[in-house]
Amino acid sequence: MSDDELRWQTVGSERGPELPLFNVRYDRVRHPASSIEISRMVLETPEWVNVVAITTAGDIVMVEQYRFGVSALTTEPVGGVVDPGESPLEAAKRELLEETGFGGGRWRSLGTVQANPAFHDNSCHLWLAEDVQRVQEQALDPGEAIRVHLMTLDDVKEAIGDGRLQHPLGLLALSRVFPLWDYKRG
Amino acid sequence: MSDDELRWQTVGSERGPELPLFNVRYDRVRHPASSIEISRMVLETPEWVNVVAITTAGDIVMVEQYRFGVSALTTEPVGGVVDPGESPLEAAKRELLEETGFGGGRWRSLGTVQANPAFHDNSCHLWLAEDVQRVQEQALDPGEAIRVHLMTLDDVKEAIGDGRLQHPLGLLALSRVFPLWDYKRG
Repeated sequence: MSDDELRWQTVGSERGPELPLFNVRYDRVRHPASSIEISRMVLETPEWVNVVAITTAGDIVMVEQYRFGVSALTTEPVGGVVDPGESPLEAAKRELLEETGFGGGRWRSLGTVQANPAFHDNSCHLWLAEDVQRVQEQALDPGEAIRVHLMTLDDVKEAIGDGRLQHPLGLLALSRVFPLWDYKRG
Repeated sequence: MSDDELRWQTVGSERGPELPLFNVRYDRVRHPASSIEISRMVLETPEWVNVVAITTAGDIVMVEQYRFGVSALTTEPVGGVVDPGESPLEAAKRELLEETGFGGGRWRSLGTVQANPAFHDNSCHLWLAEDVQRVQEQALDPGEAIRVHLMTLDDVKEAIGDGRLQHPLGLLALSRVFPLWDYKRG
């Protein structure tokens, strides 16, 4: 099977219903081999960021909040949406500062991943911030209620074990910094 | 800040527009501290699965396909949606068989993660299948055009390095089996 037999051709697009968070687009796509045409939904989504922040004392800065998708409290690294005109790094620094009051430190990229290539068109930019310090109070907007936890690696592993920490993007960022699980091949 | 100050209360729900893949729901939620009410969108989504499959010869079974969200070819472990009445393990075995023709083997859970707790209500079940073998031809539906790659761990790392493999759920599953990146703290 060649590349040409894998690449669908987009033959048309139309807007879907208006939603918060995403713009819905329907693409009319043609199967490369059979030429059958089908409709596929794309959620046009702004870029996202995720931050593994570590304090000067060596604690990992985590946030606990009620997540509306799962209707439950979760524990995660800080994450958020890149605002218009902002770079992913600026967004990551702003989100960390607003949600936790921590800032400063040395920042490094942990790479970029797709949000979900099946239906999102955006990426999530993963960051490591070392030697951050508390520089201000939290600055939450009316849609946020967030508790900051300074955790050890053992605390993080415990949160993974008991299900509080299940956010795939947060886990992925953490897994690029810490050895989170044993090599499992039997 | 207590748990009660973090838990939003859902005071009402209504259906959103009909979409493929998800059912849109709008929850009216009340801020635990301020009692301000806001609307939050939930994408009601069926459970997902993802499979790290390793052949008897030690190759990793990966699939290359055009992903409609990012409008590009991607390389990933097999993933898919749990059908009604199916268990996550059954779905994982079915998806591997349909997309690659590989079956059999010893299966083990690599845990469960949320799809995205901010707006999805579902989980993704991660599986490891060892000693799988080619047992039939691919059985693709009209909406699929998939090329199977048998990859070494070095091939997988190369696909991560050059951006072909950026699916967060696929990466998360692989990272629970293989050491994908070095411990990066400086």
